[in-house]
Amino acid sequence: MASAIEFYFDFSSPYSYIASEQIEALAARTARPLQWRPILLGAVFKASGGAPLTEVYGPKARYAVRDFARAAAFAGVPYRHPTVFPIGAVAASRAVLWLQREHSPQAVPYIHALYRAFFVDDRNVGDATVALDIAQSLGIDAARLTAGVQEEEIKTALRVEVEQAVARGVFGAPTIFVDGEMFWGHDRLDQVERWITRGPF
Amino acid sequence: MASAIEFYFDFSSPYSYIASEQIEALAARTARPLQWRPILLGAVFKASGGAPLTEVYGPKARYAVRDFARAAAFAGVPYRHPTVFPIGAVAASRAVLWLQREHSPQAVPYIHALYRAFFVDDRNVGDATVALDIAQSLGIDAARLTAGVQEEEIKTALRVEVEQAVARGVFGAPTIFVDGEMFWGHDRLDQVERWITRGPF
Repeated sequence: MASAIEFYFDFSSPYSYIASEQIEALAARTARPLQWRPILLGAVFKASGGAPLTEVYGPKARYAVRDFARAAAFAGVPYRHPTVFPIGAVAASRAVLWLQREHSPQAVPYIHALYRAFFVDDRNVGDATVALDIAQSLGIDAARLTAGVQEEEIKTALRVEVEQAVARGVFGAPTIFVDGEMFWGHDRLDQVERWITRGPF
Repeated sequence: MASAIEFYFDFSSPYSYIASEQIEALAARTARPLQWRPILLGAVFKASGGAPLTEVYGPKARYAVRDFARAAAFAGVPYRHPTVFPIGAVAASRAVLWLQREHSPQAVPYIHALYRAFFVDDRNVGDATVALDIAQSLGIDAARLTAGVQEEEIKTALRVEVEQAVARGVFGAPTIFVDGEMFWGHDRLDQVERWITRGPF
């Protein structure tokens, strides 16, 4: 089987959200499996030296907020800049890993629901209660999920995901790996697709 | 007449180079005049707080060098990462402003020649002698150009260009303004084109 498209994303990243609305179609077009890999940009930045776009120097930060909304509109993705931004979605990210470990068919729908809650409905998905509430609305067993995100194995899994991403050179999100090649940004999806369909360039 | 596409570029910027190979076709397709505006990113960074991509934190800097070449290949633009990088192309930028003031038909060919000298032939166009030599190879009067880049009016013009760009929010290159809207990056040219052809989004 062809190797997977690895999609590293953070729930607080507008460009990850935009890409999350496009990556499944790309994987389908290229007949590649898709691996959703939640990371925490806060931890990545601490390890690699980066900072959230809205906290860099003034002109770039101001432009970023405009670019988030415009890039979303260009991609046909609804977007409202969240009131609380950025966030660290620890519980939500652990919940994704737990659902994946349980082979739940709800793992990917849950990712989309979290993104839309944050970037469309302005709900703070960094709040564990909100993240759990969204899971429940999808019919996910709240008691099991609550216990799941507290498991040491799941906590460790998220920590390892971040460490491994940093070790591979990840410094922002979304970051996509395909056949060992790394691409950063929703605006590199066209290059990802060409890489798969026509080979290295 | 429809307002111009303002194209702010720096001779040391790989993404400006890539965009410089695409922006004329875009202007032609959208029937907009094109205004080439050389700036010095070194001065812009000093004013806005930025830094060259190859001098930011490690993982991002390493990725940038890979992305320069890959983005160029994706755009069908030849690229070789320059041995001396980044540079400050003061004389070359002044020369462009002098040619523009003189309404020389060689202004735009000179821009392309400088970019290709730097990013294809690995010639350091930050060196005034190299910049002058390239002008001569296009048949530009070397004596007049040499005098031109020393004019106080031209020196001031470049300083004002940079100051005005910073005042408008420019923090990197290429930066494109169209109908008052600012776009940063060669990877926003598709958005620029949509903005012109289908209006704000």
